[in-house]
Amino acid sequence: MRNFDIEKYKKEGELAYSKRADIEKLADTVTARGYNNIVIIGIGGTWAEWHPVVHVMKRYTDLPIYLENAAELCVKKDKRFLTKDSLVITASASGNTKEILNAVKMCKDMGIEAVGFSKDMETPLAKELTYTIANPCGDCEHSYVMYFMLALKLLANRGEFPNYEKFADQIGGIFDNLIRIREEFDPKAADIARAYAKEPYNIFVGSGTLWGETYLFSMCILEEMQWVRTKAVTSADFFHGTLELVEKDVPVFLFKGVDEYRELDNRVEKFCEKFTDKLTVIDIADYDLKGIDDEFKVICSPMILTALVTERLAAHYELNTGHSLEFRRYYRQFEY
Amino acid sequence: MRNFDIEKYKKEGELAYSKRADIEKLADTVTARGYNNIVIIGIGGTWAEWHPVVHVMKRYTDLPIYLENAAELCVKKDKRFLTKDSLVITASASGNTKEILNAVKMCKDMGIEAVGFSKDMETPLAKELTYTIANPCGDCEHSYVMYFMLALKLLANRGEFPNYEKFADQIGGIFDNLIRIREEFDPKAADIARAYAKEPYNIFVGSGTLWGETYLFSMCILEEMQWVRTKAVTSADFFHGTLELVEKDVPVFLFKGVDEYRELDNRVEKFCEKFTDKLTVIDIADYDLKGIDDEFKVICSPMILTALVTERLAAHYELNTGHSLEFRRYYRQFEY
Repeated sequence: MRNFDIEKYKKEGELAYSKRADIEKLADTVTARGYNNIVIIGIGGTWAEWHPVVHVMKRYTDLPIYLENAAELCVKKDKRFLTKDSLVITASASGNTKEILNAVKMCKDMGIEAVGFSKDMETPLAKELTYTIANPCGDCEHSYVMYFMLALKLLANRGEFPNYEKFADQIGGIFDNLIRIREEFDPKAADIARAYAKEPYNIFVGSGTLWGETYLFSMCILEEMQWVRTKAVTSADFFHGTLELVEKDVPVFLFKGVDEYRELDNRVEKFCEKFTDKLTVIDIADYDLKGIDDEFKVICSPMILTALVTERLAAHYELNTGHSLEFRRYYRQFEY
Repeated sequence: MRNFDIEKYKKEGELAYSKRADIEKLADTVTARGYNNIVIIGIGGTWAEWHPVVHVMKRYTDLPIYLENAAELCVKKDKRFLTKDSLVITASASGNTKEILNAVKMCKDMGIEAVGFSKDMETPLAKELTYTIANPCGDCEHSYVMYFMLALKLLANRGEFPNYEKFADQIGGIFDNLIRIREEFDPKAADIARAYAKEPYNIFVGSGTLWGETYLFSMCILEEMQWVRTKAVTSADFFHGTLELVEKDVPVFLFKGVDEYRELDNRVEKFCEKFTDKLTVIDIADYDLKGIDDEFKVICSPMILTALVTERLAAHYELNTGHSLEFRRYYRQFEY
């Protein structure tokens, strides 16, 4: 597969999974300390990665959980929920995302500790956090695995996710699954990219547990890394404006999930089948997991989608646009 | 002004404001009944109209307030917050929005009453609601005035918005202000529409109290009613993907607010001034209100923006695209 080193990927997967003990220790430490709500701080891609984690947590707990945009959290007036009794969690792979650093510093000024993930213990973020878990690879699927282990261990400690041990035992096998799933999808990724990489406008639709990744792929991959024009919209909102832009030659990408929002995705699919010749459906139900129980399939769905699109499809887009995924003209190129 | 009948508008404004006593009675009734959270249900344009109302409420209260998408609320598993102790509020101008009706029926099946707004007492929605406030005109600015009166009276009854009487007395004067503001802006609206109505792709940026209206104008007006391709993004998220799409000839519309998010808007403005020749800034600070105290300017900001863009700019877009605002090819044209 283009730009994919299986051996390297396996090693990175093992490394990410090897943080399980660290992550569980962090969960136990903050559980012992106590907290009355959870405030998760992200921005851009990290906000999007935390989105399904928060979404899943809310299915199991009544605890107030806030997913906050770091830049907005710093300025907003309505932040009474952020107190010394909050468990603040954040992440920045680079460890130098300006907005995240500002938000963590603001928390510290308020006497509130923050914990989180960064590529190593030497990043500016790691130096601000009370407890840092190393996420050396930092790609979305490693992040999802680590974030979900932390989130679900926290719920397990509250008695709200009793199958945590089984989940954590099985999730170590996700990377082998994602290699096989990549191999199944790769020829399709090549076809999709060949067909659509140069389209002037693209609609992306997703919902529920897949909304974060839908947003991430359209904005952080195609817009930021490929300069491709996109419109991302939820399956519910699609019918309140964006539907009018669908025409025979307008590409619509639908990312179908396996959670309870699937019926909203089905409605989009049925509509788009009639009105565009350029509908691409990527359906999580088409991809089996071996050694991971069905009860965890929803949790794994953003991991599968990120392997399919944010990694595989992006690699083929790059080849067809001729535009390197590494190249930015503005983002982090200078102060703004 | 094109397609704007001042006398009719004045009468509609008076009619909307005349509901003040009804609205306050509703607030008092539900306050007497008691509730432990507020669940506001919208979809598309109504979701967007409630967005600034919820945003402002959270600046004044700790009470949990949930702004829910009607279609998602019906399917989602994590709806423990929705109980018999919830105050459920909704709105549908037509009174027959399918997703809103389904959500209200679901609430009733759960033994939960809902109150809200609809054009008259005969709509399907009004028949499902325990208490309906008539919103006969139903345009955004009338809706904002009515929704804010209800929201802030609820907070006043909790002792959290002590200046409610002053606000409600003064807000009756908003419509005269919005006529004058329209007249000031109208020549600019004509210029903007002439310059950009046929652009193939348009970025819309806003934040905080203006995010709902930014989203509404781009999706419910330009996409739905004009078939114009848009990307709406918050001022914070703009810097995490969409910025890479800015080029000299890419139109960016920035809606600048007067709340604490303004510094995020300023950052977008500074960036875009350098990298596009097609930047349009619509700044709420440029529009004074007479007879309404500065302390209420943030609350009035979405009313001002909707008069400027959703009404005036749309009227000029229509003239330049030649595409009637009344015409849809799919939306509500058949079952889907």
